[in-house]
Amino acid sequence: MLKLYYAPATCALASHIALQEAGAAYATELIDFKKNQQNSPEYLKINPKGRVPSLITDRGILTETPAMLAFIAQSFPQVKLAPLDDAFAFAQVQAFNSYLCSTVHVNHAHKGRGYRWATDESSFTDMMRKLPETMAACFALIERKMFRGPWVMGGDSYTICDPYLFTLSGWLEGDSVDIATLPKVADHRRRMMDRPAVKKVLAEEQS
Amino acid sequence: MLKLYYAPATCALASHIALQEAGAAYATELIDFKKNQQNSPEYLKINPKGRVPSLITDRGILTETPAMLAFIAQSFPQVKLAPLDDAFAFAQVQAFNSYLCSTVHVNHAHKGRGYRWATDESSFTDMMRKLPETMAACFALIERKMFRGPWVMGGDSYTICDPYLFTLSGWLEGDSVDIATLPKVADHRRRMMDRPAVKKVLAEEQS
Repeated sequence: MLKLYYAPATCALASHIALQEAGAAYATELIDFKKNQQNSPEYLKINPKGRVPSLITDRGILTETPAMLAFIAQSFPQVKLAPLDDAFAFAQVQAFNSYLCSTVHVNHAHKGRGYRWATDESSFTDMMRKLPETMAACFALIERKMFRGPWVMGGDSYTICDPYLFTLSGWLEGDSVDIATLPKVADHRRRMMDRPAVKKVLAEEQS
Repeated sequence: MLKLYYAPATCALASHIALQEAGAAYATELIDFKKNQQNSPEYLKINPKGRVPSLITDRGILTETPAMLAFIAQSFPQVKLAPLDDAFAFAQVQAFNSYLCSTVHVNHAHKGRGYRWATDESSFTDMMRKLPETMAACFALIERKMFRGPWVMGGDSYTICDPYLFTLSGWLEGDSVDIATLPKVADHRRRMMDRPAVKKVLAEEQS
């Protein structure tokens, strides 16, 4: 059975929702960031990067959200969480998720994890000050150029892009970006929260 | 025909090599960073993020290296640049590439592009000072935990991970990381440079 290591309100939420949407049989284990469990010797054996999420499978361990999301889509093809038979359409899904991972999430990380890239307190303060600007710019691009609607990839195509966008748009308020300036993203959040799979996962992560 | 927009010594090199390895019919167009062409109105119509690479296809435009690499592998399945029939093995390939994109490349970007995340000169200096440490840590993890050898995914499995690793390991010298401390990565660079596809692409990019 699949097992997801996660921490609440992290990017692990995207894979958590995708597993639930896929109807997968899976267990979860909470990694407590307050206790720094992500850097415990036990967890570093699972994921030497000391990050969540990690996904235990019968074949071995997977990390990195975009890879895990594509794996979930490919493992449960009947649920159609990605256009698996169309290399170009699949690449568009992957390009969206890669942007979320390598640009949007990275920008967000400069709020509380500036120590990854700098040493001085003044640098951390500087990064935190710039954060609302960088997150607003990313989401303006998503709103204006990337989001097709009503789902990310358009039409009835609910894909692995949707739980990932939902995960990162959930950080906007804490990052001082007014979601009211992003009507498509705001509407997407509302419709995501109506989905039974999302309700169930949020209830578990917030319990 | 496919068309790759690239700039020399950027991450576009990975897709450039993959296209050549695949035997694809493709053209290239150089985007001159010294003239800030990546932010010209013409190029922003192609890629509103103002970055390279971009890949023009008959179906539309693709961006983001991990997505483009998987697209190239899926579009030329006979070349076997990824384990396309094995969702878990494909996810391992994608996880490696996602790590390069969202962690290793991002760390590298803090050398010259600190303005993406901060405003003050002192922050940029701080980031530049930390760079050798963060790049060395990433590549130590790759060397010790992720690289199987002789190719990234092991055995005879030359995949889309190999040109991407080669691209980023090419930045180590400029980032003040001594590649002699990374014997597997150094050997990988030597074997990559022996490949005809790599020689051809490097000759074009350096001409």
